[in-house]
Amino acid sequence: ATTFRASEHQHIRYNPLQDEWVLVSAHRMKRPWQGQVEPPLLTTVPRHDPHNPLCPGATRANGEVNPDYEGTFLFDNDFPALQPDAPSPGPSDHPLFQAEAARGVCKVMCFHPWSDVTLPLMSVSEIRAVVDAWASVTEELGAQYPWVQIFENKGAMMGCSNPHPHCQVWASSFLPDVAQREERCQRAYQSQHGEPLLMEYGRQELLRKERLVLTSEHWLVLVPFWAVWPFQTLLLPRRHVRRLPELTSAERDDLSSIMKKLLTKYDNLFETSFPYSMGWHGAPTGSEAGANWDHWQLHAHYYPPLLRSATVRKFMVGYEMLAQAQRDLTPEQAAERLRALPEVHYRLGQK
Amino acid sequence: ATTFRASEHQHIRYNPLQDEWVLVSAHRMKRPWQGQVEPPLLTTVPRHDPHNPLCPGATRANGEVNPDYEGTFLFDNDFPALQPDAPSPGPSDHPLFQAEAARGVCKVMCFHPWSDVTLPLMSVSEIRAVVDAWASVTEELGAQYPWVQIFENKGAMMGCSNPHPHCQVWASSFLPDVAQREERCQRAYQSQHGEPLLMEYGRQELLRKERLVLTSEHWLVLVPFWAVWPFQTLLLPRRHVRRLPELTSAERDDLSSIMKKLLTKYDNLFETSFPYSMGWHGAPTGSEAGANWDHWQLHAHYYPPLLRSATVRKFMVGYEMLAQAQRDLTPEQAAERLRALPEVHYRLGQK
Ligand SMILES: O=P(O)(O)O[C@H]1O[C@H](CO)[C@@H](O)[C@H](O)[C@H]1O
Ligand SMILES: O=P(O)(O)O[C@H]1O[C@H](CO)[C@@H](O)[C@H](O)[C@H]1O
Repeated sequence: ATTFRASEHQHIRYNPLQDEWVLVSAHRMKRPWQGQVEPPLLTTVPRHDPHNPLCPGATRANGEVNPDYEGTFLFDNDFPALQPDAPSPGPSDHPLFQAEAARGVCKVMCFHPWSDVTLPLMSVSEIRAVVDAWASVTEELGAQYPWVQIFENKGAMMGCSNPHPHCQVWASSFLPDVAQREERCQRAYQSQHGEPLLMEYGRQELLRKERLVLTSEHWLVLVPFWAVWPFQTLLLPRRHVRRLPELTSAERDDLSSIMKKLLTKYDNLFETSFPYSMGWHGAPTGSEAGANWDHWQLHAHYYPPLLRSATVRKFMVGYEMLAQAQRDLTPEQAAERLRALPEVHYRLGQK
Repeated sequence: ATTFRASEHQHIRYNPLQDEWVLVSAHRMKRPWQGQVEPPLLTTVPRHDPHNPLCPGATRANGEVNPDYEGTFLFDNDFPALQPDAPSPGPSDHPLFQAEAARGVCKVMCFHPWSDVTLPLMSVSEIRAVVDAWASVTEELGAQYPWVQIFENKGAMMGCSNPHPHCQVWASSFLPDVAQREERCQRAYQSQHGEPLLMEYGRQELLRKERLVLTSEHWLVLVPFWAVWPFQTLLLPRRHVRRLPELTSAERDDLSSIMKKLLTKYDNLFETSFPYSMGWHGAPTGSEAGANWDHWQLHAHYYPPLLRSATVRKFMVGYEMLAQAQRDLTPEQAAERLRALPEVHYRLGQK
């Protein structure tokens, strides 16, 4: 019988954090790609454009004028998917037709006054300001809402319509679907094994090493065993931390520095401003914030779409939408490639 | 208090077939779109290209020469994600690191010898040949494998790398993730309510009417109450049918005709060859095929990405990947637009 090798033999892996399976078929990277390539990136973004609604001093869609901000800048999304005062659809009349009220707020956070930088090109102390702003907005909106979703869509490929460095914050009156799944999985793991799922997972990955990308005094970055996107990563604190506001000053500094390193590696992989969606998950907030959420461990997910080059992405289509996620290289191969990349940004000239 | 209106007030809806929630924020269609637009479609595809591996008489990557086929043509995918003989990864050493064996086959099915047609431009009897080929391949591969996933990726936007009309068939030794969810949901509904979930759902939609797109003697097409993609539809037989091979000849003819109508409406919506991923779900097959699967009802899902025009798609990114699917128009609005469209294809000149 042939010996199993993950890089040669397809198999399925289980995601215990979100209760999902992925098909790993690494031998598929051998097939030639004749499909759609993405348009090349706009490389010259002006540092300041008075018509860009995210720039300091610009006028937004609702007529408000942005302040001449010098660090981060948080404001209400002019086209929010969630509003604070939507009426309830009322009780459902049938189990197959269930609708519920959804209330919330949507904010936009600019990372920097300049449009021509991205997080990996910002200084560690500028990134630290972003980390602090994330912690504050979680605290502020978390006082009222049970879930505060911070996420960044980076790059046109990820539906981002503005090159100015920014993220979004959507707070909701309900626990969104993915949060519910992570809640269920982490709660079950804790009750069965007596410790948080992601604490044990981080410890195991430190021992096994093959999926680690970066480690620092307070943080780990790894390609999860169950990663779906080609170069997906998980960013975890070493200490048991439930939510962003709990991070100490040392942990925030260290986070800023490890984020800069990770995002530099990402940009270096295909020598492009690497597109991704990323977001933070921590224990639920709102009126139940005081309950026992010790099964939760704070973490960030990075989901980048690129597979082969700056213009060839992974399409999550047919089989993935109808049956099961499928990946074309192993998480271990992805981690190895990311590990080997320099921590100095290719645009800064030292390779 | 304001009266709830689905088209004005955001709310969440539950998908009882796949146990998922979607955020419906119809007022979001008001926002202007300044993001990525898709490249315009290649409109002139040659009818026959001897270098296209899907054409009759062409030589494929493995050196095999295609026959001069005149109807449908089924062959083994030259770059399969699933192979029949992969060894097993062996027992897992830790609950957070679970991997299992995955075996199967991947086939490609050409719908027609010509590269410049698509299903809506084919005749009803040519489509009927495709339906028959789908039923046969389900029977053939279902003899050995518990799940036979038929799916079509149409259009470059959906990762399809060849314009020749075709679909894929991936049969696996395991029940894929989405199949597992539908199995769990349909089984639970049957045991609670004593009838198949999708039989009751189809009946309800026939009564409520607002989400119906097309009805025929044997079939229904509707935008499901819980649709995620802007113009997503569900295609259902009226009779309780568990798998494709069970369809009668009359049901197959009627299916061919309603598919032609649906896909013509799709093309007419933005006057483009409408991209989508679609696929069939039916009761599991393989060695357990004889068990009681009466809770299953055969159905096809259509997942088209376009939102505003032939070049502006819905991006399922940040919030959708990290938190919950979100849609920008109600399923009722989508159904109304599809209903109003002509059943004659815009390229055939009669509007
Ligand atoms: O097999 P194809 O058509 O080359 O590939 C396409 O469909 C597959 C199955 O949905 C996906 O995994 C690929 O990402 C996509 O590009
Ligand atoms: O809010 P934006 O950046 O205009 O929109 C982008 O992010 C949203 C949240 O992930 C998505 O719903 C949109 O499809 C996407 O284009």
